[in-house]
Amino acid sequence: MRSFEVKNRTLAEDIKALRLITAIKTPYLPDGRFDLEAYDALVNMQIGDGVEGVIVGGTTGEGQLMSWDEHIMLIGHTVNCFGSSIKVIGNTGSNSTREAIHATEQGFAVGMHAALHINPYYGKTSVEGMVSHFEHVLPMGPTIIYNVPSRTGQDIPPGVIHTLAQSPNLAGVKECVGHARVVQYTENGVVVWSGNDDECHDSRWDHGATGVISVASNLVPGLMHLLMFGGKNPSLNSKLLPLIDWLFKEPNPIGLNTALAQLGVVRPVFRLPYVPLPRPKRVEFVNLVKEIGREHFVGEKDVQVLDDDEFILIGRY
Amino acid sequence: MRSFEVKNRTLAEDIKALRLITAIKTPYLPDGRFDLEAYDALVNMQIGDGVEGVIVGGTTGEGQLMSWDEHIMLIGHTVNCFGSSIKVIGNTGSNSTREAIHATEQGFAVGMHAALHINPYYGKTSVEGMVSHFEHVLPMGPTIIYNVPSRTGQDIPPGVIHTLAQSPNLAGVKECVGHARVVQYTENGVVVWSGNDDECHDSRWDHGATGVISVASNLVPGLMHLLMFGGKNPSLNSKLLPLIDWLFKEPNPIGLNTALAQLGVVRPVFRLPYVPLPRPKRVEFVNLVKEIGREHFVGEKDVQVLDDDEFILIGRY
Amino acid sequence: MRSFEVKNRTLAEDIKALRLITAIKTPYLPDGRFDLEAYDALVNMQIGDGVEGVIVGGTTGEGQLMSWDEHIMLIGHTVNCFGSSIKVIGNTGSNSTREAIHATEQGFAVGMHAALHINPYYGKTSVEGMVSHFEHVLPMGPTIIYNVPSRTGQDIPPGVIHTLAQSPNLAGVKECVGHARVVQYTENGVVVWSGNDDECHDSRWDHGATGVISVASNLVPGLMHLLMFGGKNPSLNSKLLPLIDWLFKEPNPIGLNTALAQLGVVRPVFRLPYVPLPRPKRVEFVNLVKEIGREHFVGEKDVQVLDDDEFILIGRY
Amino acid sequence: MRSFEVKNRTLAEDIKALRLITAIKTPYLPDGRFDLEAYDALVNMQIGDGVEGVIVGGTTGEGQLMSWDEHIMLIGHTVNCFGSSIKVIGNTGSNSTREAIHATEQGFAVGMHAALHINPYYGKTSVEGMVSHFEHVLPMGPTIIYNVPSRTGQDIPPGVIHTLAQSPNLAGVKECVGHARVVQYTENGVVVWSGNDDECHDSRWDHGATGVISVASNLVPGLMHLLMFGGKNPSLNSKLLPLIDWLFKEPNPIGLNTALAQLGVVRPVFRLPYVPLPRPKRVEFVNLVKEIGREHFVGEKDVQVLDDDEFILIGRY
Repeated sequence: MRSFEVKNRTLAEDIKALRLITAIKTPYLPDGRFDLEAYDALVNMQIGDGVEGVIVGGTTGEGQLMSWDEHIMLIGHTVNCFGSSIKVIGNTGSNSTREAIHATEQGFAVGMHAALHINPYYGKTSVEGMVSHFEHVLPMGPTIIYNVPSRTGQDIPPGVIHTLAQSPNLAGVKECVGHARVVQYTENGVVVWSGNDDECHDSRWDHGATGVISVASNLVPGLMHLLMFGGKNPSLNSKLLPLIDWLFKEPNPIGLNTALAQLGVVRPVFRLPYVPLPRPKRVEFVNLVKEIGREHFVGEKDVQVLDDDEFILIGRY
Repeated sequence: MRSFEVKNRTLAEDIKALRLITAIKTPYLPDGRFDLEAYDALVNMQIGDGVEGVIVGGTTGEGQLMSWDEHIMLIGHTVNCFGSSIKVIGNTGSNSTREAIHATEQGFAVGMHAALHINPYYGKTSVEGMVSHFEHVLPMGPTIIYNVPSRTGQDIPPGVIHTLAQSPNLAGVKECVGHARVVQYTENGVVVWSGNDDECHDSRWDHGATGVISVASNLVPGLMHLLMFGGKNPSLNSKLLPLIDWLFKEPNPIGLNTALAQLGVVRPVFRLPYVPLPRPKRVEFVNLVKEIGREHFVGEKDVQVLDDDEFILIGRY
Repeated sequence: MRSFEVKNRTLAEDIKALRLITAIKTPYLPDGRFDLEAYDALVNMQIGDGVEGVIVGGTTGEGQLMSWDEHIMLIGHTVNCFGSSIKVIGNTGSNSTREAIHATEQGFAVGMHAALHINPYYGKTSVEGMVSHFEHVLPMGPTIIYNVPSRTGQDIPPGVIHTLAQSPNLAGVKECVGHARVVQYTENGVVVWSGNDDECHDSRWDHGATGVISVASNLVPGLMHLLMFGGKNPSLNSKLLPLIDWLFKEPNPIGLNTALAQLGVVRPVFRLPYVPLPRPKRVEFVNLVKEIGREHFVGEKDVQVLDDDEFILIGRY
Repeated sequence: MRSFEVKNRTLAEDIKALRLITAIKTPYLPDGRFDLEAYDALVNMQIGDGVEGVIVGGTTGEGQLMSWDEHIMLIGHTVNCFGSSIKVIGNTGSNSTREAIHATEQGFAVGMHAALHINPYYGKTSVEGMVSHFEHVLPMGPTIIYNVPSRTGQDIPPGVIHTLAQSPNLAGVKECVGHARVVQYTENGVVVWSGNDDECHDSRWDHGATGVISVASNLVPGLMHLLMFGGKNPSLNSKLLPLIDWLFKEPNPIGLNTALAQLGVVRPVFRLPYVPLPRPKRVEFVNLVKEIGREHFVGEKDVQVLDDDEFILIGRY
């Protein structure tokens, strides 16, 4: 189900060159559907501050809470509105090979520039199964493999990546396992994006990583851009660490969702099983914004502490 | 779930100006999935010969045989690859109001320029129900209403159209009921596209229709362009009528599917319940091509009579 | 995907013997989901008054407004709760052969006793296509074919039925075209159920029909039982005709939905595109109930005229 | 969307009493659809050897590779054919609260006796989110909570279970974390099933567990029955441990799928990302069968070592 139209020809090289990719938040309307106006505004803020790519429907964007038709629609929407300004990387991975194949085919058909693929989480499989899974989707287009054992329950061994690297479509790895693993790849010519905001500065400047696939850049895209492009900058890194630490106190995107709602950039609507951080943490966030400087954060409104009853939590949507 | 990005702002006026719209065929791979290469080629032929818009997943394009995710994907794909050259009109209508709402929202989100909406076929409803159905989707963007009682089992009374015409989003009507009905609209300022290839010349030049939403233009886009743009031309019309007659001997798109396969433009793959025309009709088509001139038809290959066993009929896909 | 468990072995003969089958209404909760309590009560009323089978998700039950998972769930639910008291016939037909195959396979897997199949409405097809469509589902189990050209836009020619009758799975035909057609089948050994409540008495007693697949029996199951089992009864038939006439003033199930809501048997919730009958018609219904006798109608509450604002119309569910 | 029919009234007490529950394998046809004949045979073997309940579409049954409609269909099918002989527990859990709500509602509607629920794997959430997730499904019927951090990436803290235990619907916990955790529950009146075949004997006889939700019982249901019902039996336990060890060398159900295929009980068809164990492991299995005794294993055929090319691996289905 290939298309050879010019618009559907992105090279893995174009993806390999990206240093700052945001795992973009998906905002919701009060009934749980996507809030495309807020989404568009958010993507425009990313573009305006130098972000080069977005992961659509990643774990941060809550792809796991989307139906596939919503997911592919959001990829298609992003391509249509922003595809000439930013690279659109669809998280079309799944723990089901069938779903990964179907979604990846559809994602490339609607014009995404690259796919993000996870190893089969939860169900898991053998190393042979993992390789077979990836080999079913890799021929479809530029691909980033995502390794995050703390979510998947299973590490992708480097051998798997080196096998896949024989395909010209392997753009690189989003790696969360730490510097030693990063080096293991970068010394062997495999492009790496740090999947940990707290490590990305060092990964980039000390361990050969190309850049970061970031959660924090949803909030402070300009500062993350400086961190990735502006040369080694431990003081900026130190300044950001408390924010990053706050963001990941609970499983992501709980912190991010809470933060963007308090910045007035998205409505305070959560699709369950996500719930906002408790009030003391919400107060902490306002203080962090003041310390770092409101002007570095997305949005124009004053940051505020939202009350419990201002949040809408949705189970059916 | 609105987006206000420039790319998602098409005016009904832009749709009203279109004279030649093709209800584009959806080609298939041998396993029943979409053949996007063939599809892209087909759309490019349309663009090359002056077609101004395509209906994606109409009854001709077999939207009724698509899952909604396939359907929206095909709309998104068409927008992405061809949206700057041709207007993309998604057939996001349904006999279920829920499905029509959902699909139309998604179609506009991925950038379609207009929606085509049918009255609730098969299940049918009252006039009040019909109006309510359309009023749930009309606010989403430019809309063409499609009236084809021979398929739906129920005529859309002109009163319904006049009610809907109060919305700035009503671009017009695709009307299959005949000249008298066409005139009833065009004399009252409602834009009409003929939905009958055999009547479109007269509708256009004698009865005020703006143009045609055509099946035949899949095959002879250049001649259909001449018919709509080149002034009154009864001799061209007469020349085309035998082809049009042949096309509709069996319910559309049976004839079209058979024709395009024999022109070598699509693989001879049918999703059931469609089956190819019988061999004598296939021979007739080859003769029609020769009479009209192969050069007026899409594709470069010689037209041929396919054998029964060259067709692939698919029930599970 | 066969199962040979005893519970999944229904013979076509068991279906052929049924005289009174109700095309059962699907009641809704205020948010548009199924109201299973009301549904169960309704089915129990049917069983209590001698109805022998139910069509689940027919056009009366608004299968056209269900997602397939809802539809199969409702079939499975009905089998589980009532399958030992009443025959469960799932309307797993579709104008898409793929969907018909998939739904029929699933319906038999969850234990339905027979399938109801429609010819491909709206999209339509050739006679050859129609036969091929039915032949893909007929081997799965006992099957009733449904002919209703006023909905489908296309008559099923008797030749198609005679071809299909070679399969031991063809239980018979639900025919809406009139007495002449009924006779054409019954004289040739094909079982017929009338699909028209206003004709069923004569079809049954004068033209050889086995019985009826009824809408009116949702309301007056006991009287419909008498009409089918109690011998020729023109006076009862005449007594019922005004009710039947009222029921079909607008496309079914608009009348039925309005009636059951006013009888207090279902909540006044409509899935669009259905809307309630206007108030004057609602008053008429109350009078009809009084004339025929409240005791013959389902439910225990007083019949009442509902106000416009008591109805809930739902587009998203 | 409740039903109060007798058939839909299972008490949590009925579930709490079960000692041997099999996480039943889902067998496939060569095209990847369910092989219901093989499934029915497998369930009958379980019933015949004293198994009291089945988990339908658990991780062992590859619920993660099913579409929800397949999943609910399989639950409905199992209820219909076997629901009077065995308790049917549907794995209607999901990492998406929406999906868990929808599937659980449907599962109970088609008659499942209890639901199995997992905490949100992969996406994960906070403890508050976890509780909220479970509280959305617990009111629907008897529920077993499943804790398997090695798959989910997140332990369910005992505090969560104690909170949920206030609901009369909490039947108990399928716990994989070890004896200390088991004791923590059983001493506090929470029913526990071991989720680890290698620990279940000791959990049952030394640590107060009620029984096991077993993978091995797919293969040796009679021996597992003896292990759970026949009194403390360390020698039987020791005899089984090499088999259990073999089963879990690679992520379950890779071993089980390979074993059942070699026993001739299911076709050697794998839905990816699962692939068979390599040949040396397949030889080991045949030896294990001989050591334990072919007569203790399901099926009647000779156990055999399958060749690589006898396995069918399927990505699209």
